[in-house]
Amino acid sequence: MSAMQKKNSAKTQKGDQTKALILETALAMFQERGYEQTTMRAIAEKANLSLGNAYYYFPSKDHLIQAFYHRTHEQHLAASLPALEKERTLKARLLTVMRLKIETINPYHKFAAALFKTAANPTSPLNPFSDDSDPVRQESIQLFAQVIEGSKSHIPKDLLAELPYLLWVYHMGIILFWIHDSSQQHRRTYRLVNHTVDLLDKLITLASNPLMRPLRKQALRLVDELRDAAQDSNDDR
Amino acid sequence: MSAMQKKNSAKTQKGDQTKALILETALAMFQERGYEQTTMRAIAEKANLSLGNAYYYFPSKDHLIQAFYHRTHEQHLAASLPALEKERTLKARLLTVMRLKIETINPYHKFAAALFKTAANPTSPLNPFSDDSDPVRQESIQLFAQVIEGSKSHIPKDLLAELPYLLWVYHMGIILFWIHDSSQQHRRTYRLVNHTVDLLDKLITLASNPLMRPLRKQALRLVDELRDAAQDSNDDR
Repeated sequence: MSAMQKKNSAKTQKGDQTKALILETALAMFQERGYEQTTMRAIAEKANLSLGNAYYYFPSKDHLIQAFYHRTHEQHLAASLPALEKERTLKARLLTVMRLKIETINPYHKFAAALFKTAANPTSPLNPFSDDSDPVRQESIQLFAQVIEGSKSHIPKDLLAELPYLLWVYHMGIILFWIHDSSQQHRRTYRLVNHTVDLLDKLITLASNPLMRPLRKQALRLVDELRDAAQDSNDDR
Repeated sequence: MSAMQKKNSAKTQKGDQTKALILETALAMFQERGYEQTTMRAIAEKANLSLGNAYYYFPSKDHLIQAFYHRTHEQHLAASLPALEKERTLKARLLTVMRLKIETINPYHKFAAALFKTAANPTSPLNPFSDDSDPVRQESIQLFAQVIEGSKSHIPKDLLAELPYLLWVYHMGIILFWIHDSSQQHRRTYRLVNHTVDLLDKLITLASNPLMRPLRKQALRLVDELRDAAQDSNDDR
């Protein structure tokens, strides 16, 4: 490594640290005061940075949340990949990934409830279905594609094309349940994951049956229709 | 009718008129300014009533919204019952009721968007799944029970017990879509209703097949689990 490269690398490291510091500070403050009530100025002050410096890393509060989504996904991915190597059935693989997702986000439970008030609105850029959330959404869908690809299940092409997206939507449903789950250690969410993964596995087998082809095609057209509607309403903004 | 009865009846009529006036005034103001931003005081002023008088009819803003839900349901019921007499298949009956629902609520589209910001929160008493919304919810579920009862479909007992509730949940999903549907005359919502009613009809037939019994039982247990969780989180409040 040249001296120049070393210097740049040191600079990047420093930058990463500052970025992480801002993100941690912001998450703690959002959790305490709520998302809407926390300003970038207050975050910068608390992190002992100039406002300009904070804005350099995160042009807006929305960027902080997208960074949070991104970091959570990276953590989930890092936990999932080695665990997936041990599992071969679709059911076990999906169960593994879903449980690890809940474990990854558990520390942010209180923050998620504060965020929900803003992100639940379909017109919010923080909504998981929004254009702004597209990069993280695509990465997360990609993980569900890996869940399917590494399994022994035989799934017809038409369903295979949509299944990663459908599993991602299912996983958003579980997160919605988790946000409002006040049971001890979120036991209820884990129970729901067990139950729904088992049911989904059976439904996927059923839907893959050649006799189910017409019904499956129709259901997949509905998925298309709903996604188109969501896309158009994003475009309208 | 005795003089006393006449007097009481006139009094009730006057009361109903005042109640309707307050409700109309409130809905218009919620639509204009948003639900949170409109106070009972402002509503009373606009309706030319004392604040005490307004509170006599509606102890809180929440009561106004529940009255709105109730009135909308009554209108929907009045339109549905005669229309249902002409239809015998489950598909045609469900389609009729769903289309009439959208027609009933269409005049409140802008207001519904304003209300959604508050009512989408599962902890809000205005949420359709909340305890406070229970009376209207039960009435609405009852209408879906009539949709099924009057049809020629043979549906197994276990599914029959849950189907009115499930159709009600489905109809809430359609309303959610409608709230965010900005297409001309909500054409997209009507298309979605056509498509989903057709699909639901086929799914109900499939689920009623004796071969599907184990999977059906499992799916119905999941419905139970989700409803219990919703109920417990209501009780926690």
